Amino acid sequence: MSAIVQNLKEKNASYASSFDKGHLALPPAKQYLVLTCMDARIDPASAFGIDLGDAHVIRNAGASARDALRSIVISEQLLGTKEILLVKHTGCGMLTFKNEDASDAVNELKSLDIDFLPFPQLETAVEEDVKFLKGTSLIPDDVPISGWVYEVETGKVRSVV
Amino acid sequence: MSAIVQNLKEKNASYASSFDKGHLALPPAKQYLVLTCMDARIDPASAFGIDLGDAHVIRNAGASARDALRSIVISEQLLGTKEILLVKHTGCGMLTFKNEDASDAVNELKSLDIDFLPFPQLETAVEEDVKFLKGTSLIPDDVPISGWVYEVETGKVRSVV
Repeated sequence: MSAIVQNLKEKNASYASSFDKGHLALPPAKQYLVLTCMDARIDPASAFGIDLGDAHVIRNAGASARDALRSIVISEQLLGTKEILLVKHTGCGMLTFKNEDASDAVNELKSLDIDFLPFPQLETAVEEDVKFLKGTSLIPDDVPISGWVYEVETGKVRSVV
Repeated sequence: MSAIVQNLKEKNASYASSFDKGHLALPPAKQYLVLTCMDARIDPASAFGIDLGDAHVIRNAGASARDALRSIVISEQLLGTKEILLVKHTGCGMLTFKNEDASDAVNELKSLDIDFLPFPQLETAVEEDVKFLKGTSLIPDDVPISGWVYEVETGKVRSVV
């Protein structure tokens, strides 16, 4: 057993021993979703104040709205989501990769028609992703969508759009 | 300001006021990633024992490995991930949706060539996703990949493959 698997088993046994939330329903109680990055320095529940059962949390490389579209549509159309928070963050890998560093990954993804989706400027990327979500007919116009930056250096979120 | 945004701002201000992890590096310290569902009843950090900075966490509807492929490749090729844990869960929406319930979402996603990716049986879906990841040339053969089920009723994980 790897140290990673051992850690999962031990920590989960401790978590389950005091678990008392087995009654929660499938649809998020507060009917919203948070889309953020897979970055290891982000703990959405703690940093964004999400109690268990309250919200969908979608995470991918760079908090890409395009990449998350399937999950967002399922959340909104089938599970009652009525508000979307999009949170990118400082120091994101998708900001810092140079194309030459990423070329192996980019080329392999391209071979499967998967877009790498890097972005050169953080606030602009938040604005563009919110605009993309507001522009798609897949999400009703009455679903509020806001864009945020989380600072991994300070633990603070700030509003962008 | 919506109640959702107000909650984010208030809870984040409290989180940031005692935040002391601004020194963490971009690559995950324990060099692994967890792929799980966006379901509101899952708190990966607590349930799977992930300390801040230790692991990438990718989340989408159903913990789909295919849908997460871009993020997995970026994590492994560019950010040092050496082990993958895939965790689906009991009571997942992707298990319980009937095709007729989902038809609007399915049809809209199809119009963009996006696969809905539902699954009829939980353990089989875990096995198939692990098999998919082990089979793709995008992930080196020496990256261990294990598949798990998380029980939203009990808080327990159990090994599948």
